[in-house]
Amino acid sequence: MNILVLGGDGYLGWPTALHLSARGHTVGIVDNFARRHYDDELGVESLIPIRSLKRRVDTWTRVSGKELAVYSGDLTDAPFVDATIGDFAPDAVVHFAEQRSAPYSMIDREHAVYTQVNNVSGTLNLLYALAERAPHAHLVKLGTMGEYGTPNIDIEEGFIEITHRGRTDVLPFPMQPGSFYHLSKVHDSHNIRFACKIWGLRATDLHQGIVYGVETDETTSHPDLATRFDYDAVFGTVLNRFIVQAVVGHPLTVYGSGGQTRGMLDIRDTLACVELAILNPADQGEYRVFNQFTETFSVGQLADMVKTLSPRPARIESLPDPRVEAQEHYYRAAHTKLLDLGLKPHLLSDTLIESLFAVVEQHSHRVDPRVIHPTVNWRQPRSAARSTVQVD
Amino acid sequence: MNILVLGGDGYLGWPTALHLSARGHTVGIVDNFARRHYDDELGVESLIPIRSLKRRVDTWTRVSGKELAVYSGDLTDAPFVDATIGDFAPDAVVHFAEQRSAPYSMIDREHAVYTQVNNVSGTLNLLYALAERAPHAHLVKLGTMGEYGTPNIDIEEGFIEITHRGRTDVLPFPMQPGSFYHLSKVHDSHNIRFACKIWGLRATDLHQGIVYGVETDETTSHPDLATRFDYDAVFGTVLNRFIVQAVVGHPLTVYGSGGQTRGMLDIRDTLACVELAILNPADQGEYRVFNQFTETFSVGQLADMVKTLSPRPARIESLPDPRVEAQEHYYRAAHTKLLDLGLKPHLLSDTLIESLFAVVEQHSHRVDPRVIHPTVNWRQPRSAARSTVQVD
Repeated sequence: MNILVLGGDGYLGWPTALHLSARGHTVGIVDNFARRHYDDELGVESLIPIRSLKRRVDTWTRVSGKELAVYSGDLTDAPFVDATIGDFAPDAVVHFAEQRSAPYSMIDREHAVYTQVNNVSGTLNLLYALAERAPHAHLVKLGTMGEYGTPNIDIEEGFIEITHRGRTDVLPFPMQPGSFYHLSKVHDSHNIRFACKIWGLRATDLHQGIVYGVETDETTSHPDLATRFDYDAVFGTVLNRFIVQAVVGHPLTVYGSGGQTRGMLDIRDTLACVELAILNPADQGEYRVFNQFTETFSVGQLADMVKTLSPRPARIESLPDPRVEAQEHYYRAAHTKLLDLGLKPHLLSDTLIESLFAVVEQHSHRVDPRVIHPTVNWRQPRSAARSTVQVD
Repeated sequence: MNILVLGGDGYLGWPTALHLSARGHTVGIVDNFARRHYDDELGVESLIPIRSLKRRVDTWTRVSGKELAVYSGDLTDAPFVDATIGDFAPDAVVHFAEQRSAPYSMIDREHAVYTQVNNVSGTLNLLYALAERAPHAHLVKLGTMGEYGTPNIDIEEGFIEITHRGRTDVLPFPMQPGSFYHLSKVHDSHNIRFACKIWGLRATDLHQGIVYGVETDETTSHPDLATRFDYDAVFGTVLNRFIVQAVVGHPLTVYGSGGQTRGMLDIRDTLACVELAILNPADQGEYRVFNQFTETFSVGQLADMVKTLSPRPARIESLPDPRVEAQEHYYRAAHTKLLDLGLKPHLLSDTLIESLFAVVEQHSHRVDPRVIHPTVNWRQPRSAARSTVQVD
């Protein structure tokens, strides 16, 4: 199959592109290098050094004998999107190409507007290009479990049957996203569902949990092929960040009570889920949602696990929660559709955490502890630009 | 009270500004004249000639002895929004300032992206400016009943209590909007609800039905004060358009079966609803939704009423529906909250329709029948620019 990976230079996009290439698909990568730009803007770096996309792609060809097509450009540039879809003629498009950090979207007005305009208009351009040039291509879109928020009822996969005053309908699950970033994904979900309805497009919206881990079969086949590993307060996600904190002797920073519970998954399961969605496509005109996570943990549970397994003594520090979110809440979310398609989860294990410790130890000299402390506060609206680089 | 009317030069914004001014409030108008620009772009005109905003405002001061502050600028210009909110110090902000035509948003990719970026980023800029400069101001936002779509259950006012697998929560009503315009309003609703939650803002989201009529107590007090009246296929709404068609001997164009049922209201009730919302504000931190319509009609019913009351013989013509929508569907929507606050509806009557005939007759020499036929088709995605002016 011809598979185009949008955002194929990022944390998950890159290993996904390699995985699909290794499985024999013809893979193209689209990227505007926004993720590397955010590093420059925030003054942070991936813990694991990453190579230029050109070098990565060249090395992959040497290692695997397989080619990767590269399209450098921006989804907000509609003629570029049109030309790329027309040239590559995808059977499936995997769409990671969005600003994906909640704290980044909450820095100030400019970052909020950027996140929503970038994500929403990029996806709109993509939908038009698919409708005109590749109406049979299957869109596999990365959404987030954060679209649902934390309702006091069980979360279903995208839709819920509601009986109300004696009548019944199956309706989109009500969404309560918790940042301007999460909101942008809800906006996308609504737009994509509509495009499937009016134009007969086919789409799978993967409502993904928090991903942990960094190594996949392909990225470990050569040092040039490593994917990024973020531990800073803006782009670093919770488990990865705790391990870095433990390694450098920084307290494990738990926001609020630590009772916040989230769906999570191993990076290797992300790759497997995307592939399962591609191999079992939505029907023409169908918009479907898969909840893409394998287990739920509270932030406090994760901190305890890392503390227990840390080779050196680790301390948990509770910080005031910079986010506006429920500290303790009901959380039960369906996630059977990908299992039904054959997903074999890598559940979080001591072994995985220990292997992450090993990876982080290897690069611990690169940790900048100044970027770990959260500086973005949900409660402080900032219309004017502010310094995004933390100065001591 | 200091009340700022965003989009105060438009069909509803202008009479709302006058109404609030007549009631003794200090009123400011913000407008970027986008609505007049769409006329130029599409080659259409308001049936009733409208004066420049400056002339309107000057005449209002002569007629009423009351001043209106005018801020010319664009909500997508964040420094302008900040400065305006800071200067006017509103107690309430009435937000009409969005691209509000579904067909306009469906012309092509460019108009879809424009509609969503304009509406969403303008509202985001406003939310930031309110949070920083006027956190106690009450935002009264014009949404649309079209955000709900046509579910097979009763529509509630913004939220619905759902019992699911033995647990119960009150959640946002699931939204199924039917155009990129309607989608933009759903995106706004999600963003505003979030801003109320994290910053403690107060907002009322008026999910308005289709408005008919053109005359209010204030606009009829001088010819310079008339508001616009649209009958073209892009900006004209259903009842107003039928009356123009009947007057000029054009068939009444019903899209599809005519079974599409919608909530509707008299323009004078729009003004009354906005004022009721302002006088009974949301609490700090509260996001509430009022469904703003007084009656429901099917499109076919409206055509029959106009046909019956037309002074000259009228004919109904069924056109293929350019929209993707249910032709026949269940429709029952709550609308008690504004009634509970004291709304006294002007129900649709023969008298109102006859008075509309009189207004239209007076200006019938200005009707351009070429702009009545729908040219925008929901099923045709158009990435490239197309001619928006209809050429015979």
